[in-house]
Amino acid sequence: MKIAVLGTGMVGQALAGRLSELGHDVVVGTRDPEATLGRTEPDGMGNPPFSAWHQQHPAIGLAPFADAAAAGELVVNATGGTTTLSVLEQAGADNLAGKVLIDISNPLDFSNGFPPTLFVKDTDSLGEQVQRAFPEVRVVKTLNTLNANLMVRPKDLGAESTVFVSGDDATAKATVTELLQSFGHTDVIDLGDISTARGTEMLLPVWLRLMGALETPFFNFKIVR
Amino acid sequence: MKIAVLGTGMVGQALAGRLSELGHDVVVGTRDPEATLGRTEPDGMGNPPFSAWHQQHPAIGLAPFADAAAAGELVVNATGGTTTLSVLEQAGADNLAGKVLIDISNPLDFSNGFPPTLFVKDTDSLGEQVQRAFPEVRVVKTLNTLNANLMVRPKDLGAESTVFVSGDDATAKATVTELLQSFGHTDVIDLGDISTARGTEMLLPVWLRLMGALETPFFNFKIVR
Repeated sequence: MKIAVLGTGMVGQALAGRLSELGHDVVVGTRDPEATLGRTEPDGMGNPPFSAWHQQHPAIGLAPFADAAAAGELVVNATGGTTTLSVLEQAGADNLAGKVLIDISNPLDFSNGFPPTLFVKDTDSLGEQVQRAFPEVRVVKTLNTLNANLMVRPKDLGAESTVFVSGDDATAKATVTELLQSFGHTDVIDLGDISTARGTEMLLPVWLRLMGALETPFFNFKIVR
Repeated sequence: MKIAVLGTGMVGQALAGRLSELGHDVVVGTRDPEATLGRTEPDGMGNPPFSAWHQQHPAIGLAPFADAAAAGELVVNATGGTTTLSVLEQAGADNLAGKVLIDISNPLDFSNGFPPTLFVKDTDSLGEQVQRAFPEVRVVKTLNTLNANLMVRPKDLGAESTVFVSGDDATAKATVTELLQSFGHTDVIDLGDISTARGTEMLLPVWLRLMGALETPFFNFKIVR
């Protein structure tokens, strides 16, 4: 499948790399490809720059958000929550219309330090904001509840864990569930419509505290039943 | 140990019954014992009245909140979130001072129907509100993330799952962890100070959606790592 991954950070790299490895035709979307490739310093978290990763993944394209979105039959939003709506506007409603949009973003507000708070929650969610802003897009919220590497290689944990899907379009959720299964996910729970993204986005506060208590991001929720 | 369980609902009954079974000297606290025993109709959820349960547990005492709190060496808050602070006031700061308080309550607001919203969240929690209102009490937030029956009989799930403790007092958390282990919990994660209760209280929205999707409250989170 032709897939556009919007965002060049750790989540975007993890998704783009894994999708390409699985045989998909992947293009990564960014604001300004030249500027993205021009950065040679590690990011604020000490991760190597996108350019270093891209050299190791020559089959993956890099294009402005709108071109990437136009090329993709399916689009992944792997941008940070604070930029999500602006990035999707740049991608363009016309380029997204009718397509499945996998939304991995979380509404984390780090402006007051750690732990971050959520800039939307409880009575609304970022997933719903995206769906309302782009009513023609078939939004599926998923993968926002675990580490980027585990999103695409869940079997690395050594025991089964759970991911969730939320969305208004059953066919879109089925498409996304197949993709998740191709990553290795064997326990995908359909929570219901896009408003159930409130629940998974509100998992982030305990996820962040768990990362502190366990001193690793290498864990995931399993729903035992 | 002498243990007071404040609250006569399903959570209070589950805790009181199990603690008594394990050999503790248990007294249940309620606003007005005569009125509580006088109710012979099932509650709004169709559960049998407290009086029916109490007849089957004659070793367990029933007393006004203040008398129960005074008698307990350890106190369990098994009341609903909306009444928690008022019940603890009735229990009395002097009767609670210096004691470990296991806080199971959740800040659920059902006034706008289902799903409920949280009346405190993200930048504060009910656990913190309790700790601030009763600074002499050693509050440990725990067990608020699973069904009442599974709180006290986690092995009924058939596979290991996780419970969390949050609190400022390490000795209190150790006492509570021992009690949790006596129930059958084998994976107790210490998240940190009482502010980490924000994370576990914010698990409720996804818990409620999971109950809907799975059509059962008989599940729990396991942190796979």
